[in-house]
Amino acid sequence: MSDFDTIRELAIAAETKIVMLVMDGLGGLPRETNGPTELEYARTPNLDRLAQEGSIGLSYPISPGIAPGSGPGHLGLFGYDPVRYLIGRGVLEAVGIGFPLTPDDLAARGNFCTVDENLLITDRRAGRIPTEKCVQLVGKLRSIQIPGLEVFVEPVQEHRFVLVFRGKDLSDALNETDPQKVGLAPLAVRAQAPGAERTAELANQWIAAARETLKSEHPANMVTLRGWAKEPGLPGYREVYKLRAAALAVYPMYKGLASLVGMELVQGLHNLDEQMSALEARWADYDFFFIHHKYTDSRGEDGNFEAKAAEIEKVDAILPRLLALKPDVLIVTGDHSTPAGWKAHSWHPVPTLLYAPGLTRRNEVSGFGETECLKGSLGFFQAKDLMPMALAYARRLNKFGA
Amino acid sequence: MSDFDTIRELAIAAETKIVMLVMDGLGGLPRETNGPTELEYARTPNLDRLAQEGSIGLSYPISPGIAPGSGPGHLGLFGYDPVRYLIGRGVLEAVGIGFPLTPDDLAARGNFCTVDENLLITDRRAGRIPTEKCVQLVGKLRSIQIPGLEVFVEPVQEHRFVLVFRGKDLSDALNETDPQKVGLAPLAVRAQAPGAERTAELANQWIAAARETLKSEHPANMVTLRGWAKEPGLPGYREVYKLRAAALAVYPMYKGLASLVGMELVQGLHNLDEQMSALEARWADYDFFFIHHKYTDSRGEDGNFEAKAAEIEKVDAILPRLLALKPDVLIVTGDHSTPAGWKAHSWHPVPTLLYAPGLTRRNEVSGFGETECLKGSLGFFQAKDLMPMALAYARRLNKFGA
Repeated sequence: MSDFDTIRELAIAAETKIVMLVMDGLGGLPRETNGPTELEYARTPNLDRLAQEGSIGLSYPISPGIAPGSGPGHLGLFGYDPVRYLIGRGVLEAVGIGFPLTPDDLAARGNFCTVDENLLITDRRAGRIPTEKCVQLVGKLRSIQIPGLEVFVEPVQEHRFVLVFRGKDLSDALNETDPQKVGLAPLAVRAQAPGAERTAELANQWIAAARETLKSEHPANMVTLRGWAKEPGLPGYREVYKLRAAALAVYPMYKGLASLVGMELVQGLHNLDEQMSALEARWADYDFFFIHHKYTDSRGEDGNFEAKAAEIEKVDAILPRLLALKPDVLIVTGDHSTPAGWKAHSWHPVPTLLYAPGLTRRNEVSGFGETECLKGSLGFFQAKDLMPMALAYARRLNKFGA
Repeated sequence: MSDFDTIRELAIAAETKIVMLVMDGLGGLPRETNGPTELEYARTPNLDRLAQEGSIGLSYPISPGIAPGSGPGHLGLFGYDPVRYLIGRGVLEAVGIGFPLTPDDLAARGNFCTVDENLLITDRRAGRIPTEKCVQLVGKLRSIQIPGLEVFVEPVQEHRFVLVFRGKDLSDALNETDPQKVGLAPLAVRAQAPGAERTAELANQWIAAARETLKSEHPANMVTLRGWAKEPGLPGYREVYKLRAAALAVYPMYKGLASLVGMELVQGLHNLDEQMSALEARWADYDFFFIHHKYTDSRGEDGNFEAKAAEIEKVDAILPRLLALKPDVLIVTGDHSTPAGWKAHSWHPVPTLLYAPGLTRRNEVSGFGETECLKGSLGFFQAKDLMPMALAYARRLNKFGA
């Protein structure tokens, strides 16, 4: 029995409210040796007070040294072991553009590419065609019909698109068609496991039709497909945790990840102010609220230390509105670190704050920051243990064993 | 190979002595934000000195967020992964009243209930009959004979009793007979796995005879059975750890749990003073001593912060006697937290002290308490790792690999 099965057995319904506020890429690094990180540099009086009155610590999204993508980073925060519950790239790509996947769906990431008269690839990205061109070509590909299959093609960006097959008994045990170097032909799709033969045949039919559709285009006269993945069929928040959960996110990727675990999406949100208004408006309707703020990560990826700190300050500033709702448990964390000095997702553990009035021990810390988190009463933990803690502090978890 | 198999391979005999002193439910919470916990509030000069000279840290009985029952809490302390080695409720109930289970035993928890003339349950607990009545009815049930089976019935408390079948090839893959609500008849026992059919038939025979025996009683005129469990057949302390182990416990539940892992029980102990006298008297006979103090948990469940602190002070006061024996390793810990403010087992990690003269690193702490444990040299760890540490510090564990 895994930890996850244990939690599923122990979770009970209750009247309590949990808020998980995720600042994407929250963790950071100092600009100079022993200097403050972005979070430590930011002026965050509300977070500092919550850190003193609550519990803080550091979470590993996966394990030491591993920098996660957005998919596993969020799955961990949602309590799903991100190594066990892998989300395939095709599904992530579909989820990232807000495509509503169903359990019958098989998704792949598509690339437009350029081939010569012998069908040998001369440019794997078709010269990175503009997104407008991608949209136009996707429009043409949508005319392809495959008997017994519903097919969706969605533009993403530049040469990238998403292909979704909807049908019964589709398999994701298929190889990628991109040969990974120029001068070679796209590979045929073959079954990589018994039972995948029919899906491979359907995929090859679609690719042949796509080539026919694109053959007079230039430079995007062919496609490659990779990251074949079925909608993962994750057990949902309601089933596992007995939580009615809502996602208050702006970006499609995070809405999509939340929907994969059965959260309901509150649509039409564009900024923290609208997210707070939605939280207030829907407070009675849900037990769990996932609030996602993207720009801490974006400014980290830009390498802009000051701008990332400013995003953290914006989040700090909305906390009085959030606390006025009196959540039983408030968690403030990130899905990974994105230090401005690294300009990318990193492996550093993530500062995490758990505020649950009356149920936390003394936290001898001066505020919320990576260095203070080392002294906090949560210690180091794995991100996937955060949901069990949230449930426990919210009085939603029975005792294990007699 | 699990961690446990590794330890089994590495453990060797030695002349050293280990004492594990368990204050049940030791971990606590502050009464007010950032105030002291029960352990921090208690005056514990001996524990404080040991913390300064030894190592302290915090243990998770299972994993973050999980509050364990007494069974998994103690199995973890004894080094057995409590999620892998689940102890069924029937066995815990038998163990809790000191019933000596054998590997041929199948135990169930029984409830007396009330049924109407159509055998529909009108009270699942038979009005919580007094324990004296339970004893009297159990006396009647003992007259039931089932060919091929040795049957034991033992009173527990009020409407609760224990049923033990002793025989060859019994299975615990049986359903509970309690329908969980009134207005329904008790369920028949059915095999839940191949091979359990004969046991199910024997159980139904016994239930029919019990109904016949009780039919003119009121209100306890029927029984329900649940928590069917086989004696778990755990590998014992002597086999796994090469330790001759003794349990110095007062309460049957903890004696029973100790006996499940092969500890010998020192009987007739009623308090800490007698436990210390037994420790002194039997010091030469064993390598490992489990000393259990129940009342820290009891006063925590009462919600009495001061009384729980007083129990901790009682344990502190006996430490000079214990230390005079010069154990090579002394561990002071709890099986879980029972904060007085929570009045139940909680999920908070448990303050743990390991004293092994000459073998621990500098511990820059002022004493033994939850907050100081955050700074201690043991850090956070899982309770099941405590026994490997105890063996190592007692020079009883070989190197792993060449």
